[in-house]
Amino acid sequence: MKKAIVLLSGGLDSAVVLYYVRKKNYKITCLTFNYNQKHKREIESAKRLVKLTKTEHILINIELPSKSSSLIDEMKPIPRGSSTKINKIRIPTTYVPARNIIFLSYALSYAEAERADNIFIGVNAIDYSGYPDCRPEFLRAFKRMSKLGTKRGIQGQPVDVIAPLLNKSKAEIVRLGSRLDVPFEYTWSCYKGEERPCGQCDSCRLRAKGFKEAGIKDPLT
Amino acid sequence: MKKAIVLLSGGLDSAVVLYYVRKKNYKITCLTFNYNQKHKREIESAKRLVKLTKTEHILINIELPSKSSSLIDEMKPIPRGSSTKINKIRIPTTYVPARNIIFLSYALSYAEAERADNIFIGVNAIDYSGYPDCRPEFLRAFKRMSKLGTKRGIQGQPVDVIAPLLNKSKAEIVRLGSRLDVPFEYTWSCYKGEERPCGQCDSCRLRAKGFKEAGIKDPLT
Repeated sequence: MKKAIVLLSGGLDSAVVLYYVRKKNYKITCLTFNYNQKHKREIESAKRLVKLTKTEHILINIELPSKSSSLIDEMKPIPRGSSTKINKIRIPTTYVPARNIIFLSYALSYAEAERADNIFIGVNAIDYSGYPDCRPEFLRAFKRMSKLGTKRGIQGQPVDVIAPLLNKSKAEIVRLGSRLDVPFEYTWSCYKGEERPCGQCDSCRLRAKGFKEAGIKDPLT
Repeated sequence: MKKAIVLLSGGLDSAVVLYYVRKKNYKITCLTFNYNQKHKREIESAKRLVKLTKTEHILINIELPSKSSSLIDEMKPIPRGSSTKINKIRIPTTYVPARNIIFLSYALSYAEAERADNIFIGVNAIDYSGYPDCRPEFLRAFKRMSKLGTKRGIQGQPVDVIAPLLNKSKAEIVRLGSRLDVPFEYTWSCYKGEERPCGQCDSCRLRAKGFKEAGIKDPLT
């Protein structure tokens, strides 16, 4: 049985990835990060999804620069909408410097230590916030770097990084999740991390767009 | 005044880099990692060097897979010598999966948050243990990846990663350190991290070779 590391935030996309990978019959270890994000209730969602899928779970605490992002810094408000597909250079304040680079680096380390074959990550570059570390050109460069910088890589057995949602719209992701019986009610997307989804942050808007276009009711709203 | 992030383990190489960068008149923030390494007394060395150079210091705790390396796992002994220059594929058990990838990823995040221009790292690929993440081809790939995966990178102002010791022999590093007045007595190299350097691990041997060839007395031995 092949082994996989799944980066699981507890959000919609990573939940769909988890159920997608499970279907492929991997032995799965999920990796979740607590970086003191405002929406750290997503970690509770991750824990529920792990329990439901009977997978392994590693929860890692990481210390990121605290004033680097409105996703962490209490003094910076989470902005209302909107994603930046229009202009790739305008990146919202919710951008966390090098976040996916750090997440993937840990995943590489654990994959190598646990002899996992693949890392799965739920990034997508269609209905997204414009973060540079979600784009296909970044992922390609990351894979090349990891091939050159790890023992497995230079021994000719690099850990592959797979992003099954990369080119899917949010509606396609919702539809895929629906087919895979993802319990959407246990996922969490809102950046504010309050009692109920705010409906106004970029993450809420992209999620709403996806459910609407897929013609599926979001159980969280 | 330009800003720099210096990866400072507390070992010989990173100490030389710190003094090298200081000479260049940067505002410096040192980054040191506690990954539960057996030789975590190197962190005390790092603290001393920071104090002497009056630089900023960020100490980051990271959770790496505990059984991944003899540098962390108490059940795995630190091997006696020897470096693996003969065959790049034989990598010693002291290899920590993706360690420099993780260190550099954090450095990128802090560099972006603190608007630093450069990251300095003390890797070298001449007198070294054969770790893949110390080689020039890895560094080139890391820089490319970081350019594509960060806001600064896609905005055309990537954080540069500089490895001033990359092509130096250990003797050249010792001579450079001597010229820069690096307090060698405050650096720590031995992987075992006991009361005195063991003199037999790869790190001790490379250090001894460097001092011997440079014709300089190592104050630690």
